[in-house]
Amino acid sequence: MSKNLRLGAASIAFSQPLYIESAASIVSQKEADGPLGNLFDLVCEDPMFGCDTWESAESTLQKETATQAISKAGLSSEDIHLMFAGDLLAQTSATCFGSAGLGIPFYGLYGACSTIGEALSLGSLALTAGFGTRVLCATSSHFATAEKEFRFPLGYGCQRPLSATWTVTGSAACILSPEAPHPSEIVGSSLLRSTLGSVAITGITTGKVIDFGFRDSLNMGGCMAPAACDTIYRHFEDFGRSVNDYDAVLTGDLGVVGRQILLDLLKEKNIDLSSVHQDCGLLIYDNQKQDTHSGGSGCGCAASVLAAYILPRVVSGFWKRVLFVPTGAMLSKVSFNEGESVAGIAHGVVIEHISKETEV
Amino acid sequence: MSKNLRLGAASIAFSQPLYIESAASIVSQKEADGPLGNLFDLVCEDPMFGCDTWESAESTLQKETATQAISKAGLSSEDIHLMFAGDLLAQTSATCFGSAGLGIPFYGLYGACSTIGEALSLGSLALTAGFGTRVLCATSSHFATAEKEFRFPLGYGCQRPLSATWTVTGSAACILSPEAPHPSEIVGSSLLRSTLGSVAITGITTGKVIDFGFRDSLNMGGCMAPAACDTIYRHFEDFGRSVNDYDAVLTGDLGVVGRQILLDLLKEKNIDLSSVHQDCGLLIYDNQKQDTHSGGSGCGCAASVLAAYILPRVVSGFWKRVLFVPTGAMLSKVSFNEGESVAGIAHGVVIEHISKETEV
Repeated sequence: MSKNLRLGAASIAFSQPLYIESAASIVSQKEADGPLGNLFDLVCEDPMFGCDTWESAESTLQKETATQAISKAGLSSEDIHLMFAGDLLAQTSATCFGSAGLGIPFYGLYGACSTIGEALSLGSLALTAGFGTRVLCATSSHFATAEKEFRFPLGYGCQRPLSATWTVTGSAACILSPEAPHPSEIVGSSLLRSTLGSVAITGITTGKVIDFGFRDSLNMGGCMAPAACDTIYRHFEDFGRSVNDYDAVLTGDLGVVGRQILLDLLKEKNIDLSSVHQDCGLLIYDNQKQDTHSGGSGCGCAASVLAAYILPRVVSGFWKRVLFVPTGAMLSKVSFNEGESVAGIAHGVVIEHISKETEV
Repeated sequence: MSKNLRLGAASIAFSQPLYIESAASIVSQKEADGPLGNLFDLVCEDPMFGCDTWESAESTLQKETATQAISKAGLSSEDIHLMFAGDLLAQTSATCFGSAGLGIPFYGLYGACSTIGEALSLGSLALTAGFGTRVLCATSSHFATAEKEFRFPLGYGCQRPLSATWTVTGSAACILSPEAPHPSEIVGSSLLRSTLGSVAITGITTGKVIDFGFRDSLNMGGCMAPAACDTIYRHFEDFGRSVNDYDAVLTGDLGVVGRQILLDLLKEKNIDLSSVHQDCGLLIYDNQKQDTHSGGSGCGCAASVLAAYILPRVVSGFWKRVLFVPTGAMLSKVSFNEGESVAGIAHGVVIEHISKETEV
């Protein structure tokens, strides 16, 4: 495999792009009622996903989504050489009892809501190193498991401040491959197998944990914005690029509050991101109508928006190059109760439209 | 970078070995009182590590160990391009508030007690893909945080069955590099910078989650043994090797109970591992004298035994090639209370002595 270009201290440009061969997303009714409602692969009206516990519901959701991504690529789980997956729960149990049960060699991740960015980055590195030809990247979140894990039992009916985000009940999974997928007309096959071109990961910028000392777990957008700023700034530096080189820069789940902080922080560094910035947490719900306050959040937020909204826009060539920056907040019930701050992390992934002529 | 050899479905043999340039371990008094007591870099008599909470204690322990590994390599944290780390706590908070604070680009892992194997594997893949020249792999566990996280408050003074293991209060960290370290006579520098040769990772076999349906969280050795069996069996198949090709095969923390199950399961596959098998959980404590029942466990168990005991034996050439197989049990307080089984995972890492003549 040819030499890749390491850029700066925390970026790599892949000399051979890693193609996203298929992607699948499953969400609950709440997300289906939002502006992207008709773009998801499947909507499950039952938030329990047919299970007895919230945790089993999330595991089932994630496993089903992973299975769907595999089947949309025309593959079976034996064809997948490696899986990177994680979720928000303690000991990533939604994953361990979910897609990890597919029997695929598995590396478990914890990157809070940035997990899909971490999975895509590590999947790209593993394929570049020559480990197999197909990697599954999966993640999930569930409103009820997350509230139970991080905040208050739903039955308390607690009031939420306007800075709070709403955890997406959703999952997404992608299949990566070093080879461009062949276009397919088969019904139910991946949109990403298109005659218009392919979608590929061409570079990554790894996040650092950035702690501004915020302690408000109900303002996670504010806690994560400094990390998003750091990653986006370093990305532009490392790749020698600017805002003009991207059709869109999409953060994970900063929401109304975090987005404004990100734009302000970048302005201090003479970067005006406002013309190309979108936030998955602001895309997935109609905050006014759906009472979701600052926006959507959770591993499933950035991931399902990627699968349902971002990748189709890139494969069609509507967007030629985007920077996908899922954001994560580092906290646990225990760390919060013990008075620790909430640090953030954000992983940058460059996703590009590759025309049929230039595919390698 | 030359082509690596993918073997079987879940293994890779690296055409260029990844050197372990330095390793550090810090433990508490309990581990210092065990058979390996004089091999660890540092012993902290205060189990609180100077902090107010158990969680902060573990974070401090891990951050200090990572710092020590960096300094033993004669480096500073700016020289490290990437970090892979994780621990047992919910949302891997020991890591997020520990070594992640060093400001190194960071991918968080959750692999239960197999985390050091996952970190070494992913570190090797990242370096092979060309991401930087130095990667830090770190993990930790703490008896008090683990009991609080998974079992009962220490104050209850619960009786423990003989199948239970004792979570190691310890941490270890390694620095990986694609280049062989230069021998050094500097006091305090890494033992792994030796004139006798170097220590390198030459291949990996990725674990699958294996669920035999066991539900006893106080017999984790039994829960993990099937996963260790699966990984070791697939490793021998994928690499076309047998027991005779290894001077030692070291599992993470199967303990007395799990070790016997592993040997029995492998015997059913016509593999007699007994002559070369050792278990880090059986090496770290004197079970009879120290009242540790089935043996040691926790992320810090396999990791600290690797740093203090295994790597020095490989660098000296006493062992030419070992298979290191840290084992993890997939459970959370919630999954256990909701009646889920405890599945296992085990990641295989081939560690070899490289003589000065054959270094690349």
